[in-house]
Amino acid sequence: MQIIIIGSGGVAANLGRLFQDNGLTITQILGRTESSTKKLAELLNCAYTIDIANLRMDGSLYIIAIQDREIPVLLSQLVIPGDAMIVHTAGGVSIDVFKPFRRQFSQYGVLYPLQSLRKETVSIPEIPFYLDANDARSKAFLEKFAEQARLNYRWADDKMRMQLHVAAVFCSNYPNYLYTLAENFCKKEGLDFSSLLPVITETTNRMSREKISPALLQTGPAIRNDLSTIDKHLNILYNDTEAREVYQFLTEKIMESSVFQNKSE
Amino acid sequence: MQIIIIGSGGVAANLGRLFQDNGLTITQILGRTESSTKKLAELLNCAYTIDIANLRMDGSLYIIAIQDREIPVLLSQLVIPGDAMIVHTAGGVSIDVFKPFRRQFSQYGVLYPLQSLRKETVSIPEIPFYLDANDARSKAFLEKFAEQARLNYRWADDKMRMQLHVAAVFCSNYPNYLYTLAENFCKKEGLDFSSLLPVITETTNRMSREKISPALLQTGPAIRNDLSTIDKHLNILYNDTEAREVYQFLTEKIMESSVFQNKSE
Repeated sequence: MQIIIIGSGGVAANLGRLFQDNGLTITQILGRTESSTKKLAELLNCAYTIDIANLRMDGSLYIIAIQDREIPVLLSQLVIPGDAMIVHTAGGVSIDVFKPFRRQFSQYGVLYPLQSLRKETVSIPEIPFYLDANDARSKAFLEKFAEQARLNYRWADDKMRMQLHVAAVFCSNYPNYLYTLAENFCKKEGLDFSSLLPVITETTNRMSREKISPALLQTGPAIRNDLSTIDKHLNILYNDTEAREVYQFLTEKIMESSVFQNKSE
Repeated sequence: MQIIIIGSGGVAANLGRLFQDNGLTITQILGRTESSTKKLAELLNCAYTIDIANLRMDGSLYIIAIQDREIPVLLSQLVIPGDAMIVHTAGGVSIDVFKPFRRQFSQYGVLYPLQSLRKETVSIPEIPFYLDANDARSKAFLEKFAEQARLNYRWADDKMRMQLHVAAVFCSNYPNYLYTLAENFCKKEGLDFSSLLPVITETTNRMSREKISPALLQTGPAIRNDLSTIDKHLNILYNDTEAREVYQFLTEKIMESSVFQNKSE
């Protein structure tokens, strides 16, 4: 199977490495900037180009791993073999993005990695994949590919994929923002943020290793309705408006939350 | 060293196990309910009582591990040897809580574990300890104890300890609330929450294993000012008022946030 990857960022790098680790060969990478594209091509031991006119026409699977908003622009310029399969990797982009270019792409779909992927990562994280395809033939092709590449995969339509994408925002982007607020506060106050890493790790280990629902694990002053501690905390944050506003909002939300009433559902 | 623990909850259980693992002996536990106190005493292979009148008077270190608000009530009833050391373990309670009882407690301090501790935990998590003491003699005593128990410890006054406590809320309670919202949304929509565990783990591994600042790691639609994706996400959350309100608030905060401007500080 000739795999061609379009993009040279975090998704391209991790998928390329994963496929290669699982015995597949990447034929070519098409990137936008010489330096990052060349670097990734060397890592994956494959050809590369930054000129769309030099895209190889013997691929069987073309994987688009670029910014969401750039996908339609790319598609309008892209020429691939008539029987090749093309997929994008975006959580928030409909499979119908290919539809206006139907004459060019007869076999298309989605290969969404539900993971936050960085180019610089040392070891490829565990990636649950969500696949979609425009017809039975595409589905069979993707299925065969996923088996060959030994992916952990399921099928998901647009709705399900976007639901997972929004859930991922709650599980990654927002917690990371809160860690950043804590780090910033520590920096200002001369505290060592790294002393908080054990409590962060423990909080997530309970879900991931011990498989305990987070609804059963909530602790802290908000869930205890401990107004005296909440007051002390707000005083401590007097100097950090952003953190204080977030503290106030989330504390109120937790105090009035319905999600902790549903434990036994 | 005769150690007596007052309390039978998560803090008492983890500290008792940790001290024991590090070669110390727990002499007695004073608890409130027979069943949980007996259970912990069996685990720690020590005596127990639920009657404060039966508290042993030969302890050299008394450790209070009970609810914050119950500490003053307990102290008003507690009689310990004149030369014994007494500490509480609360992040949010001042060392001065002992002061009104000064005639009874001449050696007092704080032994604060910066960690979220559950009774049911399988393996004791890493715990950074923050100590405080009322005078040089107490300080020397606690220092000796911390060395003997092989604790990872530092000294912290009330202000620093409470600052760490509020930072811990941002690093544990609030992320856990967000995971609960995601889990609840998944349950409602028939999605598998466990497929989000890899992205949760990856988000925290970057900080804890790769030692990268969370300020450098923010991804997602809010930091990209990707209004089209944000709109789609809000539509997807139409059925989940609580999650939608949190999404709107945190997205706006991230978009206008100053913490991501301070990367190179």
